[in-house]
Amino acid sequence: MAETDPLLVSLQPLVAQLNADYARAIDDDRLEDWPEFFAEQCLYSITSTDNQRQGYPGGLMYADSKGMLQDRVAALREANIYERQSYRHLVGLPALLGETDGVVRVETPFLVVRIMRDGRMDLFATGRYLDAIVEEAGALRFRERIVVCDSSRIDTLLALPL
Amino acid sequence: MAETDPLLVSLQPLVAQLNADYARAIDDDRLEDWPEFFAEQCLYSITSTDNQRQGYPGGLMYADSKGMLQDRVAALREANIYERQSYRHLVGLPALLGETDGVVRVETPFLVVRIMRDGRMDLFATGRYLDAIVEEAGALRFRERIVVCDSSRIDTLLALPL
Amino acid sequence: MAETDPLLVSLQPLVAQLNADYARAIDDDRLEDWPEFFAEQCLYSITSTDNQRQGYPGGLMYADSKGMLQDRVAALREANIYERQSYRHLVGLPALLGETDGVVRVETPFLVVRIMRDGRMDLFATGRYLDAIVEEAGALRFRERIVVCDSSRIDTLLALPL
Repeated sequence: MAETDPLLVSLQPLVAQLNADYARAIDDDRLEDWPEFFAEQCLYSITSTDNQRQGYPGGLMYADSKGMLQDRVAALREANIYERQSYRHLVGLPALLGETDGVVRVETPFLVVRIMRDGRMDLFATGRYLDAIVEEAGALRFRERIVVCDSSRIDTLLALPL
Repeated sequence: MAETDPLLVSLQPLVAQLNADYARAIDDDRLEDWPEFFAEQCLYSITSTDNQRQGYPGGLMYADSKGMLQDRVAALREANIYERQSYRHLVGLPALLGETDGVVRVETPFLVVRIMRDGRMDLFATGRYLDAIVEEAGALRFRERIVVCDSSRIDTLLALPL
Repeated sequence: MAETDPLLVSLQPLVAQLNADYARAIDDDRLEDWPEFFAEQCLYSITSTDNQRQGYPGGLMYADSKGMLQDRVAALREANIYERQSYRHLVGLPALLGETDGVVRVETPFLVVRIMRDGRMDLFATGRYLDAIVEEAGALRFRERIVVCDSSRIDTLLALPL
């Protein structure tokens, strides 16, 4: 049942702000800012519910340091020399799950719409973020963000972080 | 115009958390946890804007006790012996409407995406929750949750709560 | 990176409530209430990312006073004599950007689903609200709300505010 630890719930506005800033950086195509949402020691991966259920750790994207995230952005920039589609993240209400030793566990649903150059829109992805959030240098940052897509039919040439 | 009763608005994080937990229980297929979001004496129904406008009280699902919700879950479990599609709830920002005698009225929009086994996604439902929320045993619970779907074209063999 | 000014973040619940009330007024077809979300001196416009990028100030709708917003509603009421489709706004988590002299800058993503009379649903619009919010007569109001649609393919006979 719903945990209603008041201390935990008091983090709702901060976690909402973190998620809003994160989504905005990606949708504004400020990909270079994206690694800054992570702690120095971090884990980021994109996987699917099916993969996760079957115990395959691998996913569509995997990084275990901020440097790897920066490399990924550089690779995306190099690959995307043409004008491309844009995306809109709709991040749902975060569910705060618990806190241990300064690490806050949060699960947050998301939906991403893709907007093609000609204006057409489609549902690109839905899923949930499984996060471990810490405070570092006065700001909340992701120590872990596991992106679990609901559908396994995700573009393997993923042109953006989720 | 927007009510900005500070006491009421201070409930925003708690109501956000309640909604996040609720949606998560359903999307994680933890249906047995779902009745626990309701007060012992409760009202849950799923209807549509058209039905509501025409004064038909009936809807697609109706329960007026926690026991009926539990029965509903048992029936769903029995019916769904095959692997099925999954769902993703995106719950919007709650609008706190007022508080009387410890009962908080809230209206919250939602959108549900259905993910088929082959990975296809479609818009399954949109609508709003009309809630009466109370505190019971230290947690917020729904005394009433009326789910008003925007479209009348909702699957009558609804395989999940909304 | 994410600003985590605690004073600013403390506005999250208030800004969430304002956005929830705003979306609800439109989706409930209470258009006459819509101008009341704005300050007396205000700017409202609907434009697209492409228009904005190319420096075209013009957009699909433009109003620089509450009176113009009221005129717009009157015109919509006159034009829409037939039963029409309905809409559902899903407003994402607000990103609070900063505060200067009592004016709070906020960016908030949104998604609008259109529900046709026969029950069909489609993605109608996605985008972001660029807001300047002030307190007026004890309530938060928009001094500016620039609606930037992601797609340029927006119905030019827009039958509702966004």
